[in-house]
Amino acid sequence: MSTEVDLNSDLGESFGRWVLGDDEAMLDLVTSANVACGFHAGDPSTLRRTTAQAAKRDVAVGAQVGYPDLAGFGRRFVDVEPGALADDVVYQLGALEGMCRVAGTAVRYVKPHGALYNAVVHHEAQARAVVAAVRDYDAALAVLGLPGSALLRAAEDAGLRAVPEFFVDRGYTAQATLVPRSEPGALLHDADAATERVLRMVTDGVVRAVDGSDVRVTAESVCVHGDSRGAVAMAAAVRAGLIEAGVTLRPFVRGPGG
Amino acid sequence: MSTEVDLNSDLGESFGRWVLGDDEAMLDLVTSANVACGFHAGDPSTLRRTTAQAAKRDVAVGAQVGYPDLAGFGRRFVDVEPGALADDVVYQLGALEGMCRVAGTAVRYVKPHGALYNAVVHHEAQARAVVAAVRDYDAALAVLGLPGSALLRAAEDAGLRAVPEFFVDRGYTAQATLVPRSEPGALLHDADAATERVLRMVTDGVVRAVDGSDVRVTAESVCVHGDSRGAVAMAAAVRAGLIEAGVTLRPFVRGPGG
Amino acid sequence: MSTEVDLNSDLGESFGRWVLGDDEAMLDLVTSANVACGFHAGDPSTLRRTTAQAAKRDVAVGAQVGYPDLAGFGRRFVDVEPGALADDVVYQLGALEGMCRVAGTAVRYVKPHGALYNAVVHHEAQARAVVAAVRDYDAALAVLGLPGSALLRAAEDAGLRAVPEFFVDRGYTAQATLVPRSEPGALLHDADAATERVLRMVTDGVVRAVDGSDVRVTAESVCVHGDSRGAVAMAAAVRAGLIEAGVTLRPFVRGPGG
Amino acid sequence: MSTEVDLNSDLGESFGRWVLGDDEAMLDLVTSANVACGFHAGDPSTLRRTTAQAAKRDVAVGAQVGYPDLAGFGRRFVDVEPGALADDVVYQLGALEGMCRVAGTAVRYVKPHGALYNAVVHHEAQARAVVAAVRDYDAALAVLGLPGSALLRAAEDAGLRAVPEFFVDRGYTAQATLVPRSEPGALLHDADAATERVLRMVTDGVVRAVDGSDVRVTAESVCVHGDSRGAVAMAAAVRAGLIEAGVTLRPFVRGPGG
Repeated sequence: MSTEVDLNSDLGESFGRWVLGDDEAMLDLVTSANVACGFHAGDPSTLRRTTAQAAKRDVAVGAQVGYPDLAGFGRRFVDVEPGALADDVVYQLGALEGMCRVAGTAVRYVKPHGALYNAVVHHEAQARAVVAAVRDYDAALAVLGLPGSALLRAAEDAGLRAVPEFFVDRGYTAQATLVPRSEPGALLHDADAATERVLRMVTDGVVRAVDGSDVRVTAESVCVHGDSRGAVAMAAAVRAGLIEAGVTLRPFVRGPGG
Repeated sequence: MSTEVDLNSDLGESFGRWVLGDDEAMLDLVTSANVACGFHAGDPSTLRRTTAQAAKRDVAVGAQVGYPDLAGFGRRFVDVEPGALADDVVYQLGALEGMCRVAGTAVRYVKPHGALYNAVVHHEAQARAVVAAVRDYDAALAVLGLPGSALLRAAEDAGLRAVPEFFVDRGYTAQATLVPRSEPGALLHDADAATERVLRMVTDGVVRAVDGSDVRVTAESVCVHGDSRGAVAMAAAVRAGLIEAGVTLRPFVRGPGG
Repeated sequence: MSTEVDLNSDLGESFGRWVLGDDEAMLDLVTSANVACGFHAGDPSTLRRTTAQAAKRDVAVGAQVGYPDLAGFGRRFVDVEPGALADDVVYQLGALEGMCRVAGTAVRYVKPHGALYNAVVHHEAQARAVVAAVRDYDAALAVLGLPGSALLRAAEDAGLRAVPEFFVDRGYTAQATLVPRSEPGALLHDADAATERVLRMVTDGVVRAVDGSDVRVTAESVCVHGDSRGAVAMAAAVRAGLIEAGVTLRPFVRGPGG
Repeated sequence: MSTEVDLNSDLGESFGRWVLGDDEAMLDLVTSANVACGFHAGDPSTLRRTTAQAAKRDVAVGAQVGYPDLAGFGRRFVDVEPGALADDVVYQLGALEGMCRVAGTAVRYVKPHGALYNAVVHHEAQARAVVAAVRDYDAALAVLGLPGSALLRAAEDAGLRAVPEFFVDRGYTAQATLVPRSEPGALLHDADAATERVLRMVTDGVVRAVDGSDVRVTAESVCVHGDSRGAVAMAAAVRAGLIEAGVTLRPFVRGPGG
């Protein structure tokens, strides 16, 4: 089997005295690191350390851009005017790029965080603002997001590489959308089942929906979480399962650090 | 007369709803813009606008890095550990570089702001931290600061270009240091006298000290202020006087935007 | 004529080095000061100075609570979960109360700022959260807001005093709502016309709408702006006109500082 | 034995998504809670929860005021001008008081945090600024700090109750000062030894210094840490040991919640 896939995870989300997740453990597992940029999390020292550790492991670095909301960890929608949002994205991209530069790597892609991630699934103006920022900054960067989202459509329209992702632990509906967290089947807790599911998605492009039907899902990257002990264990199990099955794990971007 | 000099000023120091200074007026006068980077002032939209306006006028952009202290406008010493300070500087450099990139220009030099500027005159560890950040980020960047400061010494030791500046409106002691603001003669208010003084410094490398003696001062750049109506008027008068006297005004850095 | 009315204005909206408006000039004109609380504007020193100046003039102090968004000046909707919003309001109320305490006055009412003001016109959950915070903190406080808003309804339901306000310079529709800023007639620029209109509202409870019809409007307070030279002039003209017409200007709250 | 003592600990130091320490576990052990006020740590929801939990257990609440430095957790000296520092302290006191008010308790004392705690041991101007803020806010509040510090002297001079504290896990010199963290004997790791030492301090007012000599130490409160698993265990052991020895644990302040 010659299939391959990318594993991505949110990293660099500590802030000063406050530690979140185990970045080093996760960097041993993933092939792409969505590194926070200081607006929802990630002080400069955290970002420098995380990008340096990613560079050392040839893990590709993406800019995990978010709303300017430390207290809310970027999980609250902020009705930022599109022009200002684009400026916020450029600022964050540049800041993380600075860290990558001293670490000998570079930002290779952009993935919105939290409430911004959710907003740009449907919010056309904010989706276009994020994409405009990326295109103005560096049209060679990829954009990672939800399949079918306004963000990925806008990225394609702008000539950027749009990369859809799959969630290792989220349930899918028959329409290939995520089962809302408030409904049954929203979350998978079993690592074996999760691994099985990722394997099938990677090899056949199909996932079993909560209603039992099979639904087509295309994704070049699989998002794994790392902010709890259980999350790291699941990421490790999925990685091992994929390798054992002959799947090659590599960043979806190519080049230095990817 | 074939002499030349650079005029630099602190710009991009508005923040959101709060406007400070008249950046466009000053960008018509200066040859180098010390643009804030968001830590002491300068929201992303302000930085983008200011760097775009600078690029349009071929004004060189420098990163005016500061302590993370919006409430204090970067004017209060913060005892940041050197490693963290270096990380803060890289973050700010990268963020401003992002803005320059979309504006078609680039960061060409670094000038510390406010309390950090004052600290690195004597504080060896913080001076070396700033210089280490600049060197790690891009050893081609110049460092602008006070003649004789620990900052400029550290920059030279690190192989960076160290650029001493002269203050258009500050009194000088017989030891070529600035007259403290609490003492008589600390500030010049007359534009003609200021112009005369800059001319002499540029052509002869000499300035009349408060005690009446002549003292040697070498500077490649002259700092003018722009945060009040009177300051802009003085900057305009000095610029006009220098041009009339045949002095060429140009950025101290060369290359795109300089 | 024995009618009376209150004039309120947003004050204390400077932040550190950045000055906004002329608080002292406005405090000579208004009877109630909506003082910022640090989340959208207002550093501690500004708040202390503004509350002290208000206390000296027997101007009533209200807490102008907002979203935690300095960069956006509280003018962007933030989808804060109601429980967290209530906590944010209590925090801001307490902080401003601390300033009032050292100034010898007290917080007498609450008025949401900017995007929060607009949100709680219709957003029931955020409106109830603000009201719950006020009630839990001090049920003797009044709530100032838009007539007919979810906020004032929630305040009444909670047994709080709900105080509707009138805008000195905003156009009204035939339904007694504000003309959106994007439409003609949204803003009044003529001080005489504004004064005439306030007088009629105060004496007859009627305002001429943009379509020429008369519409009933009841308000115990009139909001005047002070963030520009023109705004201060209009506030002064309206105040003078009201006094000349025999209207008594006094805070809508009674007691110390009101 | 009828002796009594207070156990205090730093609490409420989480911030949004970032959790620090186990506040509930510590609130079961201590008699006084130094609750953060939002400047170095402590978002409004954390403060509300912590003060409510303290009120429920009749644990006295103190305001743990700090420099405005989230990224540095208040552990970096900031050269805040005394007037501004006093304003910052009043703001924090008021904000925490708001939380206490809705929780049915009140702020009973003030203890500076981190770098501010260390600064006011010697920095007379900042010490007096903190004390002036407390006195202006409520002269009935106590001030908790290091024995012999400028802070406690200033508090006494201002007529405030000055309360010296003892550190459960810090080594003492023969001069009754703390052994610097860089030197041997700076930290005690053994719970039994620590308990023994506290008991002797409480009953005899004496502590064994690192050089083996006995030195007089008077303290009405003992500071225990709770930001690690080991710290909570030591706090629990000390508490149990004191109770077993017949020492009464109670807040050093009296009244509601104390």
